[in-house]
Amino acid sequence: MLKVYLAGPDVFLQNAVDIGNHKKTLCRDYGFDGLFPADKDEDVTADPAEIFSANCSLMHQADIGIFNLTPFRGPSADAGTVYELGFMFAQDKPVFGYSSALVPYADRVGQLAGPLQEQAGRLWDQTGFSVEDFGLADNLMIARAIAESGGSFIAIDETDGDAAATLAALQAFEACLKAAQQKMDTEIGAVQAEA
Amino acid sequence: MLKVYLAGPDVFLQNAVDIGNHKKTLCRDYGFDGLFPADKDEDVTADPAEIFSANCSLMHQADIGIFNLTPFRGPSADAGTVYELGFMFAQDKPVFGYSSALVPYADRVGQLAGPLQEQAGRLWDQTGFSVEDFGLADNLMIARAIAESGGSFIAIDETDGDAAATLAALQAFEACLKAAQQKMDTEIGAVQAEA
Repeated sequence: MLKVYLAGPDVFLQNAVDIGNHKKTLCRDYGFDGLFPADKDEDVTADPAEIFSANCSLMHQADIGIFNLTPFRGPSADAGTVYELGFMFAQDKPVFGYSSALVPYADRVGQLAGPLQEQAGRLWDQTGFSVEDFGLADNLMIARAIAESGGSFIAIDETDGDAAATLAALQAFEACLKAAQQKMDTEIGAVQAEA
Repeated sequence: MLKVYLAGPDVFLQNAVDIGNHKKTLCRDYGFDGLFPADKDEDVTADPAEIFSANCSLMHQADIGIFNLTPFRGPSADAGTVYELGFMFAQDKPVFGYSSALVPYADRVGQLAGPLQEQAGRLWDQTGFSVEDFGLADNLMIARAIAESGGSFIAIDETDGDAAATLAALQAFEACLKAAQQKMDTEIGAVQAEA
């Protein structure tokens, strides 16, 4: 059974353990063994070095990564999650992303620091910083890593519930699991056909 | 001469090319060859796949990474920069960080989504999400990666200028270059002593 690292800001939810268990159960339904970072995180006075080491170990064990890229405390995904995306991409593992935000990154920046202005062919926020305007879900490094790895990104609007449900993005997560299952089945089929 | 990848949200500044050139000049002063992502970014209609590929190529060439982790559009560092930190850490390269924000991450979250409340031994923001409270400069994955790689993180308060100067964080960058020079000189000395 392929191991999937379940990265995301879910670990910051009050019901992090429940959400983690629910996501791991969904993983089983799609033929994956889900590894959730909060597993190692029950000691709330935990040492950051130990959490870091435990998460790196889980990522090393994992065959693929599924990343909750729902915006967190700003227009972009959670910083720890994005760090882990770079880490797993560098290990040549397929990375998949999901989010409960349908609105593209540039529009989210507009909500935070707009109105945006076009000048010299680029978009600028009110602080005077340029805004990537490729219609992508987040910074291009994130979106392109997912695409280049053979993964996919799925957004489903789940912003009508409370903040915790919006952050957990369960519908998008399940759709992403389905996409990952299809992709990995295809890859395994191709390897078997070659053999 | 060791090659240094100069990651950061500097690429979103109006004077990105000037800042990039200035940082590359400072690199030479400390014995490094600086690789700045905006080098490849002059065509403003550039394709995200090309920018991604060019940045990955620069990171592969680089021996070490120096990351501008100044908060960007929220309490954490720029998402693209954090992605690249994970990417280079996974390649076992020393990673260094700098920032113009002295205030720890938890306090920055408090400014955005506070007042923070303590409950069950953890800190919580007003949205109901927990806040890492380790006194670190950002998410623990970022801070620990720098430490584990043998790098260092340097913050110098440069928030009294305009937003562009605060984001460029030139004083912290130069202090970080100095730290990187000392570290790499020590490593090279140790290798020579072994030989």
